[in-house]
Amino acid sequence: MAGEPELVSGSPSLGLGALALDWAQQLAGHSDQANALTVAYLTRAHQTAAAEIAGWMIEAGMQVEIDAVGNVVGRYVSSNPAAKTLLTGSHFDTVKNGGKYDGRLGILLPIAVVKRLHDHGIRLPFHLEVIAFAEEEGLRYRSSFLASSALVGAFDLSSLDSVDEDGVSMRDAMRAAGLPGTEEAIRALRRDPARIAGFIEVHIEQGPVLLDRGLPLGVVTSIAGGVRMSAKIEGQASHAGTTPMTMRRDAAAAAAEMILAIESRCAQAPTLVGTVGQIDVPNGATNVVPGRCEFSIDIRAGDDRTRDEAVADVMRVCEAIAKRRGVTLSFERTMTVACAPCAPALMDLLAESLERVGAGHFRLPSGAGHDAMMMARITNACMLFVRCGNSGISHNPLETVVVEDVDLAGLVFLDFLRNFRA
Amino acid sequence: MAGEPELVSGSPSLGLGALALDWAQQLAGHSDQANALTVAYLTRAHQTAAAEIAGWMIEAGMQVEIDAVGNVVGRYVSSNPAAKTLLTGSHFDTVKNGGKYDGRLGILLPIAVVKRLHDHGIRLPFHLEVIAFAEEEGLRYRSSFLASSALVGAFDLSSLDSVDEDGVSMRDAMRAAGLPGTEEAIRALRRDPARIAGFIEVHIEQGPVLLDRGLPLGVVTSIAGGVRMSAKIEGQASHAGTTPMTMRRDAAAAAAEMILAIESRCAQAPTLVGTVGQIDVPNGATNVVPGRCEFSIDIRAGDDRTRDEAVADVMRVCEAIAKRRGVTLSFERTMTVACAPCAPALMDLLAESLERVGAGHFRLPSGAGHDAMMMARITNACMLFVRCGNSGISHNPLETVVVEDVDLAGLVFLDFLRNFRA
Repeated sequence: MAGEPELVSGSPSLGLGALALDWAQQLAGHSDQANALTVAYLTRAHQTAAAEIAGWMIEAGMQVEIDAVGNVVGRYVSSNPAAKTLLTGSHFDTVKNGGKYDGRLGILLPIAVVKRLHDHGIRLPFHLEVIAFAEEEGLRYRSSFLASSALVGAFDLSSLDSVDEDGVSMRDAMRAAGLPGTEEAIRALRRDPARIAGFIEVHIEQGPVLLDRGLPLGVVTSIAGGVRMSAKIEGQASHAGTTPMTMRRDAAAAAAEMILAIESRCAQAPTLVGTVGQIDVPNGATNVVPGRCEFSIDIRAGDDRTRDEAVADVMRVCEAIAKRRGVTLSFERTMTVACAPCAPALMDLLAESLERVGAGHFRLPSGAGHDAMMMARITNACMLFVRCGNSGISHNPLETVVVEDVDLAGLVFLDFLRNFRA
Repeated sequence: MAGEPELVSGSPSLGLGALALDWAQQLAGHSDQANALTVAYLTRAHQTAAAEIAGWMIEAGMQVEIDAVGNVVGRYVSSNPAAKTLLTGSHFDTVKNGGKYDGRLGILLPIAVVKRLHDHGIRLPFHLEVIAFAEEEGLRYRSSFLASSALVGAFDLSSLDSVDEDGVSMRDAMRAAGLPGTEEAIRALRRDPARIAGFIEVHIEQGPVLLDRGLPLGVVTSIAGGVRMSAKIEGQASHAGTTPMTMRRDAAAAAAEMILAIESRCAQAPTLVGTVGQIDVPNGATNVVPGRCEFSIDIRAGDDRTRDEAVADVMRVCEAIAKRRGVTLSFERTMTVACAPCAPALMDLLAESLERVGAGHFRLPSGAGHDAMMMARITNACMLFVRCGNSGISHNPLETVVVEDVDLAGLVFLDFLRNFRA
């Protein structure tokens, strides 16, 4: 950055963080719900949010188009027309009653950085596209990563005929929003990997690790895939007063033992996590020994091998518990998603930028899924995490970041752009 | 029984067991539901069942009245008018979709025995009353032991104004059934303890202990009281992917550890049982670390001290688990019922009868509540348990007994009457 001090300092009133957070606040004014931030795919609030983002992109000197799945694509054209394109971005749809920064920070901060470049008349030796992905959360059509999947040729075209809870098909929703709503138009969105230089996504951590370590930023090492299962236990319902402890086949006590086994096994590797988020004793009563118990299992890790070994161990241990307790156990696997490792060269470049701006150098896996996971299918991908406040809470109105961290992330992003070679 | 062989043998066609089971089958023909046995307090089915029982009592040589709470009271008058009265009986109301023998066996088998005495012209040196209690299960008004509580002066008169799910008050239901429905009439049901010689209740075990031991009958040592509590845990809901195992405050994992602690502690005394019959993770989702978990606790034992020590230990251990895991725990005690020990002299007399008829000699506590628990407030009480089939299942259409066991119970009851001294 030597020789361009004005780019990285700026006055406080023009700080990258302040600008991005100001835009995030304005963007949160568009919502499907009166007293909560909810922006589902292609609703009116979604379309007005897209228009507002497009306006900021134009203000930042970008060429803008809205593509066939509703992505807002801003292109900051290079001084070299033959150059490849570096992609960045994240999603602007939200969960129900979500937060202002999830996804959106990864759109708004890059626009702020481009605006700074543009304001200083600086062109890059590669094209840069900031993509505001129209759909990642799956709120309206229960089919997440719609927007990024279209760019990598993984859009499930049959989902065009899926319907929302009001019976509106995705195809009709697209057409109502002025999009073509055709298979052809969506197929045409697939990017040519040969023309892409990489993908970088800025995102709030959505967890407590950076906060706990007192660090503003972190380089993501991989985006965890996951395995989800449901477990069903059948024991013997019986009278809570008249069945001696030694003669019980208590499905809930068996589940309790399994839950602790899952917790214990998943504490045995650094990036591994295992969660039982739902437990049910169907028709349970205070005075009846549970005859059935059902629970969910979600296991993730920074790499597939660590996760798959944990899944196998968990299943084996649970089966042994079931056998010893005389209950039957069945598993149903409801989801398997492979991990997406980040590209080592991009991680290193990002880490160097962190060190240069004085943000230390810390790497961590992402336990949550992100658009970068999809983009990694066709190009080298990396992610920059920004510390969350409030114990790392996300998908919640309490989601928060501080302006100083976002400022620093902006400087890292700028430094990354200045050092990236397409 | 020497000198009266005809009383205890009888032809198979006249067996006490066969007669009681035949009546139980007939009685099951009255139900509030078409394809299930459900007899709630003072419904039409309840009243026709009462009338049928009254008819069998008359056939057995008893004076019969229906008292102010709907109990059918059959009195087999003694040859000595000044004698005290031995009471026996159980309830004829049922749970929803219940079994044919719960409660009813303790009415019908005594009537069959009295009929045998009457048929042979035998009078007893004490009055014997067989009481068909109108309400024990609490199905219609959620206030169990209504019928026996009236006899011991413990009827909660405010319950007269409680309403069923159709809004019908208990007072109006009584009047519609031809009962006075007044406080005065119910108060007058209280028996004078000085005129009562004791209470004996025959009942199916409703558990698997006798079945497991290969024994037809057992003498009950005490009727377990119980403590019921609800436990609520507050942890921290967080993202299942992004919250490392070491940084979680998982309410459901804490609950799992508590459930196993309850199971383990309640296995440490012979008559002690502890059950977690309901578990809930409010708003739980597969991919969210549970922030809240609620569960029920039901702890019973053959004596109050054993139970109270277990309750205190369970609370202490659960609190330690909560503290270690950084979650908050609160208990609400929803029920505390004292144990009713059976009268030693009556237990011994009953045990002698068991030995005389060749049914061995086995004592066990009752984990379930029974009318004898209420009657024990004013007189010496005891209970005779009859083995259940089908793993001891009860409160269920699969509830069953075998005729041989009921026959044997009839002989024991007869022998008990012949040896009881008022």
